[in-house]
Amino acid sequence: MKNSKLGVLMVGLNGATANTTVAGCYLIRKKLAPAYGLMTNEPLFAKHQLVKLDQLVFGGWDFANRDAARVADQQGVIPPALLNKVTGDLKKLKPMPGVTTAHDVDLFRRQKHAHKTNSLGKKLELLIANIERFKKTHRLDKTVVVFTGSPLKQFKPGSLHQNIKSFKQALARNHADITSGMLYALAAIETGSPFIDFTTNTTLEVKALVDYAKSKKVPLAGKDGKTGQTMIKTALAQLLKIKNLKLTGWYSTNLLGNPDGQILSLPEYGQNKFKDKLGVLQPILKYSDFDHSVDIKYYGPRGDNKEAWDNIDFLGWLGQPMTMKINWLGRDSILAAPLIIDLVRLMENAQRKGRGGLQTHLAFFFKNPLGAKPQGLFKEYQILEKLYA
Amino acid sequence: MKNSKLGVLMVGLNGATANTTVAGCYLIRKKLAPAYGLMTNEPLFAKHQLVKLDQLVFGGWDFANRDAARVADQQGVIPPALLNKVTGDLKKLKPMPGVTTAHDVDLFRRQKHAHKTNSLGKKLELLIANIERFKKTHRLDKTVVVFTGSPLKQFKPGSLHQNIKSFKQALARNHADITSGMLYALAAIETGSPFIDFTTNTTLEVKALVDYAKSKKVPLAGKDGKTGQTMIKTALAQLLKIKNLKLTGWYSTNLLGNPDGQILSLPEYGQNKFKDKLGVLQPILKYSDFDHSVDIKYYGPRGDNKEAWDNIDFLGWLGQPMTMKINWLGRDSILAAPLIIDLVRLMENAQRKGRGGLQTHLAFFFKNPLGAKPQGLFKEYQILEKLYA
Amino acid sequence: MKNSKLGVLMVGLNGATANTTVAGCYLIRKKLAPAYGLMTNEPLFAKHQLVKLDQLVFGGWDFANRDAARVADQQGVIPPALLNKVTGDLKKLKPMPGVTTAHDVDLFRRQKHAHKTNSLGKKLELLIANIERFKKTHRLDKTVVVFTGSPLKQFKPGSLHQNIKSFKQALARNHADITSGMLYALAAIETGSPFIDFTTNTTLEVKALVDYAKSKKVPLAGKDGKTGQTMIKTALAQLLKIKNLKLTGWYSTNLLGNPDGQILSLPEYGQNKFKDKLGVLQPILKYSDFDHSVDIKYYGPRGDNKEAWDNIDFLGWLGQPMTMKINWLGRDSILAAPLIIDLVRLMENAQRKGRGGLQTHLAFFFKNPLGAKPQGLFKEYQILEKLYA
Amino acid sequence: MKNSKLGVLMVGLNGATANTTVAGCYLIRKKLAPAYGLMTNEPLFAKHQLVKLDQLVFGGWDFANRDAARVADQQGVIPPALLNKVTGDLKKLKPMPGVTTAHDVDLFRRQKHAHKTNSLGKKLELLIANIERFKKTHRLDKTVVVFTGSPLKQFKPGSLHQNIKSFKQALARNHADITSGMLYALAAIETGSPFIDFTTNTTLEVKALVDYAKSKKVPLAGKDGKTGQTMIKTALAQLLKIKNLKLTGWYSTNLLGNPDGQILSLPEYGQNKFKDKLGVLQPILKYSDFDHSVDIKYYGPRGDNKEAWDNIDFLGWLGQPMTMKINWLGRDSILAAPLIIDLVRLMENAQRKGRGGLQTHLAFFFKNPLGAKPQGLFKEYQILEKLYA
Repeated sequence: MKNSKLGVLMVGLNGATANTTVAGCYLIRKKLAPAYGLMTNEPLFAKHQLVKLDQLVFGGWDFANRDAARVADQQGVIPPALLNKVTGDLKKLKPMPGVTTAHDVDLFRRQKHAHKTNSLGKKLELLIANIERFKKTHRLDKTVVVFTGSPLKQFKPGSLHQNIKSFKQALARNHADITSGMLYALAAIETGSPFIDFTTNTTLEVKALVDYAKSKKVPLAGKDGKTGQTMIKTALAQLLKIKNLKLTGWYSTNLLGNPDGQILSLPEYGQNKFKDKLGVLQPILKYSDFDHSVDIKYYGPRGDNKEAWDNIDFLGWLGQPMTMKINWLGRDSILAAPLIIDLVRLMENAQRKGRGGLQTHLAFFFKNPLGAKPQGLFKEYQILEKLYA
Repeated sequence: MKNSKLGVLMVGLNGATANTTVAGCYLIRKKLAPAYGLMTNEPLFAKHQLVKLDQLVFGGWDFANRDAARVADQQGVIPPALLNKVTGDLKKLKPMPGVTTAHDVDLFRRQKHAHKTNSLGKKLELLIANIERFKKTHRLDKTVVVFTGSPLKQFKPGSLHQNIKSFKQALARNHADITSGMLYALAAIETGSPFIDFTTNTTLEVKALVDYAKSKKVPLAGKDGKTGQTMIKTALAQLLKIKNLKLTGWYSTNLLGNPDGQILSLPEYGQNKFKDKLGVLQPILKYSDFDHSVDIKYYGPRGDNKEAWDNIDFLGWLGQPMTMKINWLGRDSILAAPLIIDLVRLMENAQRKGRGGLQTHLAFFFKNPLGAKPQGLFKEYQILEKLYA
Repeated sequence: MKNSKLGVLMVGLNGATANTTVAGCYLIRKKLAPAYGLMTNEPLFAKHQLVKLDQLVFGGWDFANRDAARVADQQGVIPPALLNKVTGDLKKLKPMPGVTTAHDVDLFRRQKHAHKTNSLGKKLELLIANIERFKKTHRLDKTVVVFTGSPLKQFKPGSLHQNIKSFKQALARNHADITSGMLYALAAIETGSPFIDFTTNTTLEVKALVDYAKSKKVPLAGKDGKTGQTMIKTALAQLLKIKNLKLTGWYSTNLLGNPDGQILSLPEYGQNKFKDKLGVLQPILKYSDFDHSVDIKYYGPRGDNKEAWDNIDFLGWLGQPMTMKINWLGRDSILAAPLIIDLVRLMENAQRKGRGGLQTHLAFFFKNPLGAKPQGLFKEYQILEKLYA
Repeated sequence: MKNSKLGVLMVGLNGATANTTVAGCYLIRKKLAPAYGLMTNEPLFAKHQLVKLDQLVFGGWDFANRDAARVADQQGVIPPALLNKVTGDLKKLKPMPGVTTAHDVDLFRRQKHAHKTNSLGKKLELLIANIERFKKTHRLDKTVVVFTGSPLKQFKPGSLHQNIKSFKQALARNHADITSGMLYALAAIETGSPFIDFTTNTTLEVKALVDYAKSKKVPLAGKDGKTGQTMIKTALAQLLKIKNLKLTGWYSTNLLGNPDGQILSLPEYGQNKFKDKLGVLQPILKYSDFDHSVDIKYYGPRGDNKEAWDNIDFLGWLGQPMTMKINWLGRDSILAAPLIIDLVRLMENAQRKGRGGLQTHLAFFFKNPLGAKPQGLFKEYQILEKLYA
């Protein structure tokens, strides 16, 4: 992408992930901080004219009507000494009011900064209008929409989600099985904006939306960003596979102290996340006779600094048991932010190359790569290598 | 390799690595224990007719004149209940007397089970005769020689090691800069036997031997089997590289309770090992501004169960620090044994394909892959994949 | 206790704890294994003529009618090479049939080796007869009864449990609120046998039993043996208290692969255990504004080797945060067995000294010391020191 | 101590420990931060009228002539947001020039802010004059001197150190075996100031000084503050002892990124520290047949945040092996600062009670408690309890 600008509209603009993404880009543009973690800065991608950080224009929706400077200050992810240098820019960034349905966490539905209508059709129209106005205001040719909102209540797609016609009819009837995530995705598709679901929601498991995006040449990608523990897990599982070491047990526990942790510790919101986290081993190892358990615990003292502990039991030569333990002291938003930018760049590139529908070559980035299966982190990287070498 | 047998002659036959390799093969052939850890059993290699475990005939040299059953019993690597089932076979396996030079650990030079001559030329002849007799006795077409002996004193190749002519002249003069390892390697080359150095010795850094083997189409491979901590390290370092996370420090410590640990804790024997362990990060990461330290400690309570602890510090987005810690409870011989078999199979295959000299495509298996540079475990695996796919 | 013998009757004789206790005593008597972990062997207790290991005669109840040799062999806690040396003695040890009520785990209620009557009164009589017969057969003056059975369903004492009269009336009416644990305790009291509850059951929270035992000068002690993670926790919590370091969070997770782990992972059986484990910090620290969470996970690969991981967050000078993490690789039965013997010895001693009712000076041994509050491991040790110095 | 002020003079005033002590007191007095870690704030000491934080007046010596505000800013131990609130006070605090001898680290001897004379006698006089002037300036009755300087070169006391007469004669002759630490200690004794050696130096192993202080009723205490890993070690070792669990191996490694770490990684400066760290187990356990090793590694990324990893192997019932691993993420100065204040308070109290010479009742605070032997952390606490209850 040569000279024009690219809009990046994030759902959950005031969440730690989106906020750290934006503030980080501002700092990096000013050369005040390094862009470590940004994979697409590596030589492999050099000749593909990916969109530059300078070309990105940020915006988005949130239920909390605060500017990005106040949000960053409260979250404390970025040290104050750094943050102070972009306070001016961040103050200008305020979210548009979002949309909710019954699947949103109660906490957020009660928030005031949301479109007031009860009509799903009206909500969709408002989102589409939001995107178009953002383009016009900033004189953009293109936008990418990224879902980084809170987890929605668990949900199973039914017959109305099978094709776009029945889906739109249901939408017109205000059907209860249409989530806010789907409204954002549809608004993106209708406006020709690539849509990324960085969360664990079922949005892009809706066949109607996937087929529709494909027909309109709009790229989609999801789901559930592979940031920390699961990223390591898919790397080590591939290692066990290559080396023919037999896994017998993998116990993973997570301590999270941010609002995400609080919501995910509620069973109806956390179950998808567990499914995503538990689902990665069998496809890589090609067997399933092992103990696999994943715990997520809300634990205040940790804040945004996520901690994970993994215990891995495996058998080697003659069935003799060995063990490996990992203590991961990562930082959720610090790990997620560069992935968001990587995905925005690669999705814009995919759209330029005429690719629509689920972008399975981006499996590397997701715990549950829709349209593909987890294959192991390095195998997934080889797919990117082949495409971009 | 279709029907004939393959001889496997190991230097240090009574060491835990060689003993566990042999006892393990006997158990696996009888279907009494699984061959986990044996990479060449994976589908990738299926169509290449690698030599089967049934086709291997074991022998070797050692300074301790004990049969393999007694050795296995003392080492306690394999549980007695398993071991008992192959005691008969192991009793029949006794080492030939080995050769030593001034570089061997004093402990071993004092051992009685060694060829008595002081002439290097005579020692070489005896080794060649050992190999030829072994072939005749067991009606073998081919043998592979594997060095799994104890670490030799540190050594730097000089001008006499530059070509085979000067090397042989020096050998004839009983030159002090020729080690026992080189004698084994030369005996292997002269008898057309592929030679693997699984230890950290400088043997295959001798240009004279490498060129000579190339000219005689004898495959060589080394050095220092990548079994545990360093294997994981080269996997994770590649991960950091791919993800553009900036390493700032890597602290590794090792607790070893076996005789190897005792020798490696002596500076003059351990230094090569440190060099091998420390040398892997820079070539993978392409930068060197990080703290890297490796400790090896002899620690009695651990026995053959090696323990490692790694602390890895790295920077992500905006230079924010994160940490990962790994506690590895591996088992040295259990990890090494299948690698030995993998290497024997792949070296025999390389010889069949007409390849001589250093087999750089086997970098995956070595801490310090001679003729190549560490590239990261998965990149090294891709080299194998390309060759065998 | 000078020359006579002491009977030790264990409920759950075929459980790993009881079995390892008995087999261990047999081995130690024959000087085939050391008595490490046995606190009462330390000089502090030397002059108090505690009962000797040679004086103990073991017996007990279980629903599985197998001899102790078979049980030990299956459990694999003690290495076969050791176990073989006491097989003869263990073969002679078979459990008496036990009693159950609706609170027992279904699994056990379905077992056949139990007294068949439905009358609680009859069950009690049978247990009393069992004890008396055991004394007679082995010519014993005294017995101690130790409850090491499986966790019972959670239960809350009501008005009928307030005094022995209403309790016995309820028992006569086959009241549903009387558990098998209470029957064993009452049988012990009626026969003048000290009773120890090593499990998390509510048995000794029944006031009727405690008062009755006091009146009959029968010592009682419980509950929930402090073997591993909680033992360490009560030591470190006292350390934090002494040093005025402010706890902000303590996350504990447990991996258990034995049958106990399976039952405790069921909420209705595990809740008491959680209460015991969670209840120790506040009384030691004297504040409660911290995150405390405990997980117990059934995890097959671990077997009887219990693993725990603790993450402890605390504040020091100026409120600056620090962290300590503990990985505990203990062994449940190996830790529990010497505590059982310690308790048997000290309870016999208490009875000799004329003490009845709850023995609060034994708080050191229990997660939830009945009649006392957790005070920290070393403070609890001081109580013993004062008494025995 | 009722109303008067107490001077606290620290050697190494610009080191992180002293700086964090002073800045912390300023913050706590203003109620801007909590005094966690300060043991003497606990109820045990309430009725003893220990000196209050408000009563302390700080000063000291250092080779770097910078004010305490700049130092604190550079060290980054205290977060800027807190630090800013006492910048004014800290700016006023500047060190007096110190004294050096040949035992000081070259790095520091080259520093310019030191008394220029070569005469030891002159140096002593200057230090005494410093103390007296400080008292006069601040109208103080008493001062305490605390050595928190860098480790000095290893040193073994000889005959001249046996009594004060020969010591003073040697001093007059500028004898090479008198260290700067001894000069500070003697200056303290001559001015009637209690002297605390918080470092690993041999200062208070000099019999001449100890006897002299005793005769002058000046309390002394040392050596090597028990802040982190060794504190935990002496607690857990006591636990093993009490529980009769048999230690077989204890491996400790330390990562330090502050200047102390750099000096301690040099063998001639680090050896005392190793001796202090290694010496604690045998006196507590009363046996020595175990592997004990301690490593200290300079590791840049850690900064003042000290990290330790301990692996503890022990045997339980029947000699069965178990293991415990501890990962300690402490902060050197944050742990040390409150101990300094505790010691100052207790030493002032000891002086008021007329106690001179080595204060063995303060063993709790030191790795190598001079005049006593390590007994286990909680046993050492009992000594305090008895004295202050």
